[in-house]
Amino acid sequence: MVIDTQNERPRHRIQLSKVGVKNLKTFIITERSGLRHHILPTVDITIDLPAELKGVHMSRLVESMTEELSDQFRVHSSIEQIQMRILEGLVNKHKFKRGEVKFDFEFGYVSHTPVSKKRTWEVCDVTATTIMEEGKPFIHDVEVKVIGNTVCPHCMANNDGLTHIQRAFGKLRIVGEIDKIPTYGSMIEIIEKSFSSKTYSLLKLEDEMHVTKEMHDNPLLVEDVCRNILQHAKEKYSDRDLEMFAEARSLESIHKHDVIAQGRIVTNGYD
Amino acid sequence: MVIDTQNERPRHRIQLSKVGVKNLKTFIITERSGLRHHILPTVDITIDLPAELKGVHMSRLVESMTEELSDQFRVHSSIEQIQMRILEGLVNKHKFKRGEVKFDFEFGYVSHTPVSKKRTWEVCDVTATTIMEEGKPFIHDVEVKVIGNTVCPHCMANNDGLTHIQRAFGKLRIVGEIDKIPTYGSMIEIIEKSFSSKTYSLLKLEDEMHVTKEMHDNPLLVEDVCRNILQHAKEKYSDRDLEMFAEARSLESIHKHDVIAQGRIVTNGYD
Amino acid sequence: MVIDTQNERPRHRIQLSKVGVKNLKTFIITERSGLRHHILPTVDITIDLPAELKGVHMSRLVESMTEELSDQFRVHSSIEQIQMRILEGLVNKHKFKRGEVKFDFEFGYVSHTPVSKKRTWEVCDVTATTIMEEGKPFIHDVEVKVIGNTVCPHCMANNDGLTHIQRAFGKLRIVGEIDKIPTYGSMIEIIEKSFSSKTYSLLKLEDEMHVTKEMHDNPLLVEDVCRNILQHAKEKYSDRDLEMFAEARSLESIHKHDVIAQGRIVTNGYD
Amino acid sequence: MVIDTQNERPRHRIQLSKVGVKNLKTFIITERSGLRHHILPTVDITIDLPAELKGVHMSRLVESMTEELSDQFRVHSSIEQIQMRILEGLVNKHKFKRGEVKFDFEFGYVSHTPVSKKRTWEVCDVTATTIMEEGKPFIHDVEVKVIGNTVCPHCMANNDGLTHIQRAFGKLRIVGEIDKIPTYGSMIEIIEKSFSSKTYSLLKLEDEMHVTKEMHDNPLLVEDVCRNILQHAKEKYSDRDLEMFAEARSLESIHKHDVIAQGRIVTNGYD
Repeated sequence: MVIDTQNERPRHRIQLSKVGVKNLKTFIITERSGLRHHILPTVDITIDLPAELKGVHMSRLVESMTEELSDQFRVHSSIEQIQMRILEGLVNKHKFKRGEVKFDFEFGYVSHTPVSKKRTWEVCDVTATTIMEEGKPFIHDVEVKVIGNTVCPHCMANNDGLTHIQRAFGKLRIVGEIDKIPTYGSMIEIIEKSFSSKTYSLLKLEDEMHVTKEMHDNPLLVEDVCRNILQHAKEKYSDRDLEMFAEARSLESIHKHDVIAQGRIVTNGYD
Repeated sequence: MVIDTQNERPRHRIQLSKVGVKNLKTFIITERSGLRHHILPTVDITIDLPAELKGVHMSRLVESMTEELSDQFRVHSSIEQIQMRILEGLVNKHKFKRGEVKFDFEFGYVSHTPVSKKRTWEVCDVTATTIMEEGKPFIHDVEVKVIGNTVCPHCMANNDGLTHIQRAFGKLRIVGEIDKIPTYGSMIEIIEKSFSSKTYSLLKLEDEMHVTKEMHDNPLLVEDVCRNILQHAKEKYSDRDLEMFAEARSLESIHKHDVIAQGRIVTNGYD
Repeated sequence: MVIDTQNERPRHRIQLSKVGVKNLKTFIITERSGLRHHILPTVDITIDLPAELKGVHMSRLVESMTEELSDQFRVHSSIEQIQMRILEGLVNKHKFKRGEVKFDFEFGYVSHTPVSKKRTWEVCDVTATTIMEEGKPFIHDVEVKVIGNTVCPHCMANNDGLTHIQRAFGKLRIVGEIDKIPTYGSMIEIIEKSFSSKTYSLLKLEDEMHVTKEMHDNPLLVEDVCRNILQHAKEKYSDRDLEMFAEARSLESIHKHDVIAQGRIVTNGYD
Repeated sequence: MVIDTQNERPRHRIQLSKVGVKNLKTFIITERSGLRHHILPTVDITIDLPAELKGVHMSRLVESMTEELSDQFRVHSSIEQIQMRILEGLVNKHKFKRGEVKFDFEFGYVSHTPVSKKRTWEVCDVTATTIMEEGKPFIHDVEVKVIGNTVCPHCMANNDGLTHIQRAFGKLRIVGEIDKIPTYGSMIEIIEKSFSSKTYSLLKLEDEMHVTKEMHDNPLLVEDVCRNILQHAKEKYSDRDLEMFAEARSLESIHKHDVIAQGRIVTNGYD
């Protein structure tokens, strides 16, 4: 006979907001608009735990994922769809009021060099979370982080055009109802055009000259990059109810430390 | 003549919540209740930026710290005091409505082995942030992360006393008015007694036997460890208005993934 | 007219052993013995640089990879084959005496729970490098890192069977001529059976009881795990000329620090 | 009666090269030439294990450090001296043929801004290891890693002076008899002057203009930075028998990946 420790009364009757598994690994294929993606996410699955129960049945959380992804080569329509189905499967196995499934992964996409027009493969970091809460629509929370650069306009203005340049990171995080969330591709595009220039895994000399000129024609502080991301996102997604966060971070080439800028914006209708 | 790019109007008039420097390094000596600590923090200093200004004068943020810490060997009374003085210095150099100074560092403390009573040196991770906001008291936000262990009571109950044991992390984060914040030592003590047992940098055989027995007498899920931290903190700090968060994470010895539990509690009076 | 800085004479005529690109990303599909793998490696490509040349044409190193992997959905026979072809392509673009291609990636494989026989998905870390040197056969250097556990036999022997248990890492690194290198699957198997027990992403209660008993029946120090890996590798690969390194690391549950053991062995014929 | 598992015969009689503790923490004060340093190292202590012994007595390794550092506020003459004394203490507690003590830590030093002459606090990473082997002198192996920058001369030459600039890392590693090893300060100086320019935690506008001009006057590839470090080290330490390794890595501002260069040089007399 099994002793069900999890269903005992805990010593201290305190409600817990998130209990579950962290750093699980899986493998997923998605296809959207004809583009196939192979994704190796690190997965967290957590649920709330009422004050009167001692523990969560952890293996049911793992099974909610392994059962949904039992066919490793099945092609899914999107990460959001998979996460919703994991939560729908989980709620039939284990009671909860609020559950969430979070994936951290690298997302690859094709780009082209600006002059020589060669095909390149670029990679960005994505964190995508779906939240299921009793009596509410599914919420999705996605952050995309892309590598670009900044060129200091303050130094350029005071130094006869000479300035310092550096690698930078741009982040756009969007929270909203799951069917309002834009594609990763659309978010990547917004971040890339917010930098002094895009970055590429391959640049032939003619491309490098083009990119370097573009950078000098478009000097930006991290404050500018952060506002560009927010403004572009606001314009592009004005018809949806979304909460949006942006961050720019610059690995200063004249300092050992970084500089950062963060902001938040909501589209009309989001409260 | 200097061109003050930062004071220009930005292209997109969006207010930014945090702009500043990240991953600065410094060195600090503190002494509290006769205990001297040498701390090498990684520092973030950020302020808000109004919609009508293009940028922050970053070097003033750095100077607010270097001027406060110009005498490297000066003994300070606490991290909170240093952070308050950096913000008070900064507000005289650069206008802001909300500024914050964040330190990440390793904090060492003396402990003693349980049986052989040898002196040991233990280290935990601390993140401490002070926030200065117009018209409000200074707020302090501190998180302490300590290494301990869990022993699975569910497996033990079903398996004739045999069970799995593993390293675990316990976190306690406390937010409140700066003079209400407890010492690191008091927070460490709360976390350490919430595990199946404390951990030590040195254990002679008699200590190892003692610790191992203690662990088996006190089997705990991460849910139990998290609730223990919250309960102990609630009892100890009941007379202060604080918001408190706890997390327990266990590096499962039978899995490749971890399990976690998170909760939040407030003491009477905190709204 | 292009100024070819790379072909100029350097200021200091010093030969460099490795020059190239680091942290490139790509995407690869392999299939071996009917098992398909989707791999997202982080890539380093480096060559030597003679004393009389100022620099390497970095874009040719990137192109040696992008041209080999131009068809993203092509199925390759192995990582070794891809790395050899990248080096063969590179030597036609850029002169070198010694070149190497290194991939770091997560490698997923199917396993089954020991009692309930459910299918699980396990992931380990692999670092695989192919080296091409003038007048020598291709050399391959591969390290596989798998998560397992240790159970302390010293504590168990002195403490009436009570002991401490913890997550551990096992590594096996093999260096040899490229056609002598075993499969990842075979290396993973060797490491997994060298621990107190294997670990699983999913365990139902009957599996957890089985694994816990197995662990207590097989208490091992990191020294034992390291020697097990070396012995198993020596037995399995006795007919090949290989140099083999093993490491075991244990995240001690009673300490904040880890314990490690490292060793090296060669099979007959390796000099 | 204690059962001494470590002294039993192992199942597989394989000699192990390194067995010990990893990621121990401690706190040390040193003073050399009147400069006091406060150091929080992460410590590894390992020894070899003969084929006929099952295990190492791990607590003796920890004690060799805690006994040497029992007075936390004692001022030591150097890291090398501490490491030698730990090994000399250890060899009296535990037999070994080859033992090593490794410290990883951040090392802070005072610098001054180039024009405004303000005092700054800069930090670099150091890894320092002392090796004690039967019948041989103490060997020391130290690596210093400093942040600087590169400015691409190839792009500058082809693009009317426009180029890309980025943060870079320079490393110098020196191996030799312990009394031949130079100070960290001397190694830092060599690395700093090998970049396009030094970096600073604080720069006022006049300093930033100076640094930016210096960078454009001194465009360097990672190959150049690596050779500069090797050449400067060779010149400075020509009278000592040392083996020296250098690495330069550049966080390219136009790419998502890095570029690296590595080399090795020995001074006369080193064989």
